[in-house]
Amino acid sequence: MLVIRPATAEDVGQILWFIRQLAIYEKAEHEVHASEQQIHSALFGELAHCGCLMAEVDGAAVGFALYFFNFSTWLGQPGLYLEDLFVMPESRGLGAGKALLKALAKVALDRGCGRFEWSVLDWNTPAIDFYQSLGAEPQSEWIIYRTTGQALKNLAKEE
Amino acid sequence: MLVIRPATAEDVGQILWFIRQLAIYEKAEHEVHASEQQIHSALFGELAHCGCLMAEVDGAAVGFALYFFNFSTWLGQPGLYLEDLFVMPESRGLGAGKALLKALAKVALDRGCGRFEWSVLDWNTPAIDFYQSLGAEPQSEWIIYRTTGQALKNLAKEE
Repeated sequence: MLVIRPATAEDVGQILWFIRQLAIYEKAEHEVHASEQQIHSALFGELAHCGCLMAEVDGAAVGFALYFFNFSTWLGQPGLYLEDLFVMPESRGLGAGKALLKALAKVALDRGCGRFEWSVLDWNTPAIDFYQSLGAEPQSEWIIYRTTGQALKNLAKEE
Repeated sequence: MLVIRPATAEDVGQILWFIRQLAIYEKAEHEVHASEQQIHSALFGELAHCGCLMAEVDGAAVGFALYFFNFSTWLGQPGLYLEDLFVMPESRGLGAGKALLKALAKVALDRGCGRFEWSVLDWNTPAIDFYQSLGAEPQSEWIIYRTTGQALKNLAKEE
């Protein structure tokens, strides 16, 4: 039986393992530097600002969804942003991904959000087809810009 | 003289006016439904999760930057996400935009963030050139998906 439930502190090791599996699929395993302590802190620490749902089949974790709240200045409302969604390859087709997204949509409405958003790699056609089938719309005119590492430090420096 | 300072509750009307000016530039004025009360709540309410910096020239507000904290599961660290950046057209070229971005980079490092990110419309060439000149990198392989309004309600519904 498929069950969606909020993550607990006991799930942190499993969540980090899922994060690594997703990064491997996204061809970015070398970019995963997170520790169990960091994930614990983001989800359950004093300044925690993220949430996480687990998908279980017959009591075994098969996937997860990690999210936080963003803000739309146009709507004047928070939005729910899904950072990571992953279901184990051997557990796909059981509806776990859809159940996680539906549960997140409920969290979004319960928390007064006007939007539910996430990002997808442009070559991930199965995921894109799945999101389109759920009525989500691509915001293709927006490009994300990022500064990190030394470039971020340089930007922060006084002239 | 150019000054960057944190917004106060007295700035909320000015901030909402800037939000509208930015939406007009982005050809989306009809999408601004935010009220002063909603912006006040997001910045200064009990559950406030956004921050805002103001740019002033000789004591007059000429621009703003509204942000919140996201989270990178790869870094295991929060990131600073810049939702809106705007400088009045007649006040451009004085360095207010760059000063706002530099101040935000400092906020990001002070708050333990591993990244500083924002989004730009793909036709906004002056902004893109400016961001590139600061060392920011486009994450062009990512497409943002969004569900809102009735589509979000439908997704949240039980089958």
